[in-house]
Amino acid sequence: MSAPLRGLLAADPVVATAGVALFADALRDQAVPVVDAGWHPPLPGTEAALAAVMADPRRVAANAEAVARMTAAEAVLVDVLPASEALGLERGTFLHAGPPVTWERASGPMRGALVGAVLLEGLADTAEEAERHLAAGAFDLEPCHHRGGVGPMAGVVSPSMWVYVLRDEVHGNDSWCSLNEGLGKVLRYGAYGPEVIDRLRWMGEVLGPILQQAVRSVGPVDIRAIIAQMLQMGDEGHNRNRAGSLMLLRELLPGMITTDAPATDVAEAVRFSGANEHFFLNLGMPACKLATRAAEGIAGSTVVTTMARNGTDFGIRVSGTGDAWFTGPANTPEGLFLGDFGPEDANPDIGDSAITETGGIGGLAMAAAPAIVKFVGGDVPFALAATRRMYEVTVGEHPMYQVPILGFRGTPVGIDVTAVVRTGELPQINTGMAGRVAGTGQVGAGLVTPPEQCFTAAITALAEAAVR
Amino acid sequence: MSAPLRGLLAADPVVATAGVALFADALRDQAVPVVDAGWHPPLPGTEAALAAVMADPRRVAANAEAVARMTAAEAVLVDVLPASEALGLERGTFLHAGPPVTWERASGPMRGALVGAVLLEGLADTAEEAERHLAAGAFDLEPCHHRGGVGPMAGVVSPSMWVYVLRDEVHGNDSWCSLNEGLGKVLRYGAYGPEVIDRLRWMGEVLGPILQQAVRSVGPVDIRAIIAQMLQMGDEGHNRNRAGSLMLLRELLPGMITTDAPATDVAEAVRFSGANEHFFLNLGMPACKLATRAAEGIAGSTVVTTMARNGTDFGIRVSGTGDAWFTGPANTPEGLFLGDFGPEDANPDIGDSAITETGGIGGLAMAAAPAIVKFVGGDVPFALAATRRMYEVTVGEHPMYQVPILGFRGTPVGIDVTAVVRTGELPQINTGMAGRVAGTGQVGAGLVTPPEQCFTAAITALAEAAVR
Repeated sequence: MSAPLRGLLAADPVVATAGVALFADALRDQAVPVVDAGWHPPLPGTEAALAAVMADPRRVAANAEAVARMTAAEAVLVDVLPASEALGLERGTFLHAGPPVTWERASGPMRGALVGAVLLEGLADTAEEAERHLAAGAFDLEPCHHRGGVGPMAGVVSPSMWVYVLRDEVHGNDSWCSLNEGLGKVLRYGAYGPEVIDRLRWMGEVLGPILQQAVRSVGPVDIRAIIAQMLQMGDEGHNRNRAGSLMLLRELLPGMITTDAPATDVAEAVRFSGANEHFFLNLGMPACKLATRAAEGIAGSTVVTTMARNGTDFGIRVSGTGDAWFTGPANTPEGLFLGDFGPEDANPDIGDSAITETGGIGGLAMAAAPAIVKFVGGDVPFALAATRRMYEVTVGEHPMYQVPILGFRGTPVGIDVTAVVRTGELPQINTGMAGRVAGTGQVGAGLVTPPEQCFTAAITALAEAAVR
Repeated sequence: MSAPLRGLLAADPVVATAGVALFADALRDQAVPVVDAGWHPPLPGTEAALAAVMADPRRVAANAEAVARMTAAEAVLVDVLPASEALGLERGTFLHAGPPVTWERASGPMRGALVGAVLLEGLADTAEEAERHLAAGAFDLEPCHHRGGVGPMAGVVSPSMWVYVLRDEVHGNDSWCSLNEGLGKVLRYGAYGPEVIDRLRWMGEVLGPILQQAVRSVGPVDIRAIIAQMLQMGDEGHNRNRAGSLMLLRELLPGMITTDAPATDVAEAVRFSGANEHFFLNLGMPACKLATRAAEGIAGSTVVTTMARNGTDFGIRVSGTGDAWFTGPANTPEGLFLGDFGPEDANPDIGDSAITETGGIGGLAMAAAPAIVKFVGGDVPFALAATRRMYEVTVGEHPMYQVPILGFRGTPVGIDVTAVVRTGELPQINTGMAGRVAGTGQVGAGLVTPPEQCFTAAITALAEAAVR
């Protein structure tokens, strides 16, 4: 017996176990201290594909490149424009959150938001007429992601809605996102009553132009710098945006109050923006979109570049497989409900806002935002554990986005399909919950993960593209 | 031998030790697991007084009453006024931080701030002339605390300076604090150059009146509600006021932009306020002063109602002993320095801002603000441990001020002289550091505690007043 092995047996055993509990339990019965390692077998049926992808000689360098690009991408707010101008959105085309979906397969809140947008554009006079046109295929539906942008919840964008325009000079990319409507009965949660349409009209006629003048006079605004700070101020950038919204307001206010708009309009725009604790969400999302855009299309990379939901399907896209969507049925979040709403009122997971998790904040940064558990459920140890767990399925740590309570460790960034498949540990998302029935609005907020199918489909496609 | 004792000896010993290490070390040498309890003997020479005070039958109820009042006290910003109007401050009287001090015993930054205030009031034409008058006793010096208010750092207040006025309707008390000048070369850190005096003039002529109009139009502003929120946003309210300052700005801005002041003045007031991350400190301090005022003068209570420093002495006052100051030589903070400054440049501890710790935030709430360690030194585990340690020397937990990372536990509130004397655990204060030499300004920020003498003197006085 060699010396090291003799040494091993001469002392008391130190045992770490993984997988089935049988061996660990037997040792514990004999009073041997055991450390459990959290190990699970790979997702069922993925073993061969996983082996092929893990053996791809391009993988490690490609993933390092993907995360290097994601964390180097800038995100500067440069303008505010109507969608018709910003992305040449045509009358009769409606963008939406998540992977492609048809009217037939669309969920209640997605249908409600589409109806509202059709009414806003004056393409129907009543909700019933709008539904008829939509059901007859009179309009084109297209994901926001296919136009390089993102929309929270239903994410419905029509030509007359205004959008923030963000730029990443390092990689030469643009992105955009709609303006935030506030909470409650709002289009993005599927409400389309008169107050929703009136608010959207006011946002188009008053708020948008004031924000445009403000950004043009005080901008460009570095959105990444705000994200970095908000993570030190109890926000995680998906469902907690309090500090971010205040910092954005501080940046834009000097420009808002010096526009040539009537004083009452300015006062209302300031009041509306200041009262909205998610004012910043619609800037954080396109900032993360710019990060993930920069990481797209790297041959051999298994890093996730999109996670998005349309209320029916959850879809992911992966750097090494380009524009292909890998979808599965969206899970329904579990969490806390507003007023009298309950679990039976909740629609399955919806929105492009999981771009925040894809970019390394949101659910992945929950340890930075312990107070969020009062909004999405769980407790403080859960929030800390969520971020710690996500280091197991990500490629890197974000150099700018740090979590103070973890000793300023960078947030986990670059979700790795191979790591998710190998461990079965799905990305942690926290999210708003829309009412199942069109027209309801928000019913709560909670915690959710993507369906496994997204990742098993992705690993299969990555295996087909793998270099042997 | 009785049954319980037989049981004790039948099993393996479980040992907790306190005090000297000898016994614990001997057990460890015999491989017996030992848990150390953090116990120290009482502060030297206090045993008899401590016993007398602990035996005072009024103590427990009096302390419960003190903390009940502290945590029930309101703090509503109701007005902004010149000190001459708000507190009838007379020309030739200068208020200052901490316990009473004479010019002869005043430190560099206190002297510098007094010189600046004399220049501002036009009572001298040069710094030399101002010093001569001050040395000759031409002016009256009085603590801010004696007029029911507080001032950060040197805390010098003269009649033409403007102050925030806060009100606690529950106990019928008012409090006040000067306006914050921003960082760097500022009067409160002992600088008195022309830019300091010019800024103070502008604050009196432009900023004060704009803030007055704003508060009168949008106020009253609930300062306690802001403190409660900022603790969930990474601030502890003494040296980290980022979120608090943004929330205050959001409250006041609608009122600031609609004043009748010239647009350029409004824009400059908004810019000045928005750029100041300690804008809120001067509201948090008088809010804590109102809390501690409510707890003053309860016979038998050993709860600390004031901790304040003048740069030479640290002084405390205690509920059960009324207006009496118990002082000792101020310690010099240890921490991080700006630019080329080092420990030899730091003045001993100065300012009324330790009212935040007295009211249950600041250093006592450091666990809520892990990012503060980048500013005052220490590391994240230290910040968590500081708050945990403070539960040992406080009477209660604040129902409104909560620490998310500790599972929303209330901050430790109501520093108990008997607990400090019994454990030797001194209140944790974090603080700005002024330059030792008059005219320097801020040199850094760090951590400090009161000198033990404050507490040994207080326990002696409490013992003399104790009921047997």
